[in-house]
Amino acid sequence: METFDVTYRLVRDRRRAIREQVDALRYEQGVELPPETVPEAIRDRVVGTVEAVEEIGADRYRAVIRWPVDNLGGEIAALLNLLYGTVSLRPGIRVTGVEWGPLERAGVLRGPAGGIRAIRERFGIPGRALTATALKPLGESTAALAEQCREFAAGGIDVIKDDDGLFDQSTAPFEERVPACVEAVRAASAGGGRRARYFPHVTSDPARTVERYERAGELGADGVLVCPHIAGLPLLDRLARHPSPLPLMAHPSMSGALTAGADAGIAPALLYGQLWRALGADFVIFASPGGRFPMEEDECRALCEGARTTRLPFPRAFPTPAGGMQLDALDRHRERYGPDTVFLIGGSLRQHPGGLRTAAREFSEGVR
Amino acid sequence: METFDVTYRLVRDRRRAIREQVDALRYEQGVELPPETVPEAIRDRVVGTVEAVEEIGADRYRAVIRWPVDNLGGEIAALLNLLYGTVSLRPGIRVTGVEWGPLERAGVLRGPAGGIRAIRERFGIPGRALTATALKPLGESTAALAEQCREFAAGGIDVIKDDDGLFDQSTAPFEERVPACVEAVRAASAGGGRRARYFPHVTSDPARTVERYERAGELGADGVLVCPHIAGLPLLDRLARHPSPLPLMAHPSMSGALTAGADAGIAPALLYGQLWRALGADFVIFASPGGRFPMEEDECRALCEGARTTRLPFPRAFPTPAGGMQLDALDRHRERYGPDTVFLIGGSLRQHPGGLRTAAREFSEGVR
Repeated sequence: METFDVTYRLVRDRRRAIREQVDALRYEQGVELPPETVPEAIRDRVVGTVEAVEEIGADRYRAVIRWPVDNLGGEIAALLNLLYGTVSLRPGIRVTGVEWGPLERAGVLRGPAGGIRAIRERFGIPGRALTATALKPLGESTAALAEQCREFAAGGIDVIKDDDGLFDQSTAPFEERVPACVEAVRAASAGGGRRARYFPHVTSDPARTVERYERAGELGADGVLVCPHIAGLPLLDRLARHPSPLPLMAHPSMSGALTAGADAGIAPALLYGQLWRALGADFVIFASPGGRFPMEEDECRALCEGARTTRLPFPRAFPTPAGGMQLDALDRHRERYGPDTVFLIGGSLRQHPGGLRTAAREFSEGVR
Repeated sequence: METFDVTYRLVRDRRRAIREQVDALRYEQGVELPPETVPEAIRDRVVGTVEAVEEIGADRYRAVIRWPVDNLGGEIAALLNLLYGTVSLRPGIRVTGVEWGPLERAGVLRGPAGGIRAIRERFGIPGRALTATALKPLGESTAALAEQCREFAAGGIDVIKDDDGLFDQSTAPFEERVPACVEAVRAASAGGGRRARYFPHVTSDPARTVERYERAGELGADGVLVCPHIAGLPLLDRLARHPSPLPLMAHPSMSGALTAGADAGIAPALLYGQLWRALGADFVIFASPGGRFPMEEDECRALCEGARTTRLPFPRAFPTPAGGMQLDALDRHRERYGPDTVFLIGGSLRQHPGGLRTAAREFSEGVR
């Protein structure tokens, strides 16, 4: 029987033995029934087995549960339900690791359509890190956003993406904004130097997300931005499996409560670094230490390792640190992250006294 | 300018004045830029205004921000991003209230296709509470699940739903399970007494969720079960807006980390009671106090009030308490919840020494 391991971090409930807690967890995620009501054949075939339980700190335990791949019927939705379904309603349970190999072999997950290597080839950027920034804010006209594109592109930014707040508002509707920005980026890049790419934001309801994704391709966009925790995680895979796939940049909007704290949810390193990669993200945006959101250094290192390691059976994804990184701290960030990185700096470029193009040039010259 | 109010609960960050924190929040959710870089015209048109800030406890504040409806461009995805997008990555911010009227008037949200009144008519159950249970566990064959349907239906249960762990696994594939359970429920209900209804689970990737929803209707199912936090919240609205809508029962799988604790995420009363209703759920499943998941009495009361109140501009939804309620505590639960309720009891029926049919009969006789 093909199986895969899931690792959990548990807070000890002092009224019960830790082994009982692990059993409650595997019964909850396997069958959602009290153990004594589960027929033996099903217990052996469906309820996971406990592979390890070890103390890792004061009242903190690491537990490994081995699950049958057949529990999933090949579906991502079933995997999410098994990883963190109804146990999400219990306190003190955090998912920290998944064994991806069997899930890839079973065709449940396939990773990015491209990944670091394919995107470096497609964009013609062999060895260095990439620079990225965002068109904002909501409320600017299409003309103003296109003007931003020209400035950023002329300054040598590699990837110019829509802000996650840009949907289809009347100030810059999707069908007007995308061709205008594609054209602006192209014109500004024609003068030589680094060629910029434009990634519009396509998150909407599922049908319209797919529509906008396809329209983005038709209109000449170079990739798209999507918020999987708004659109739904299975949609990320759906986009990555499209017959004409565009590079997918995933944004963490609405994901924060799932990764906050240390004792519940899904570890950021696992969610952003590995699960998003497994679901098809070529670029994973996350809050960098040193920005305006909290992120631990260790977690950040593990996240980057998860996105880039060749030990996972998926194309590698670009860690895309963001969330208030400052232009004047770029050298420190380059040292922290290394070349297989996309640096996403937004607000800091706008605070530069020399204007957007000068700020963009400093940014792009700082990343070689 | 049409606006809507959003209420947040904030934990005071002692390094800053509370007013600064509220400003950071509205700039984050409005424009994601430092205030000094935002053009005045956009600040006035896009960044929300602070309508109230009051202390509600030790270092806890309630803040009301008034947002332009135009920020949303009519889209649910934009609403989710505005309510709890990148601020989800900051600690100490919890969304506790939304003013729905302007969102309904703008056509952003429309609520259930049916709601309590329409479902009472459709099912021919005028005044009493409803009983519900789940087919489980994963691993049982289609024949065994159909046999459970017969027992529950003969015992008088109103709604028999798939467990959220049943997707399209080979032990009971969707296309085999649904017609078998529809038929079993129909046959067992033909003898008179209460007529049971079957709700298959349709969560999958977006395209297949819609397909299964439509197949469920074609195959004669009476409603469906869906996990909006796996499928994606905007998909709930998409299903409710279907030209041939089926009653929608929403399940909280994977939502727990979003509502846990008191200082982050979205308040359970708001998420399950109001947002799910606004998105189109006819039935909102949540963890009842007295079960195996934590839930505060006050929060539970507010949740039920949100689902049922006529003050919201949407059809009313059935609170569907679940999560380990015991059959022998039914009287207490009936008193707690009143008649506009669907009681969902699963495991406890299976622990009954008299078998499923006897347990079901006790359950249904206890709810009149």
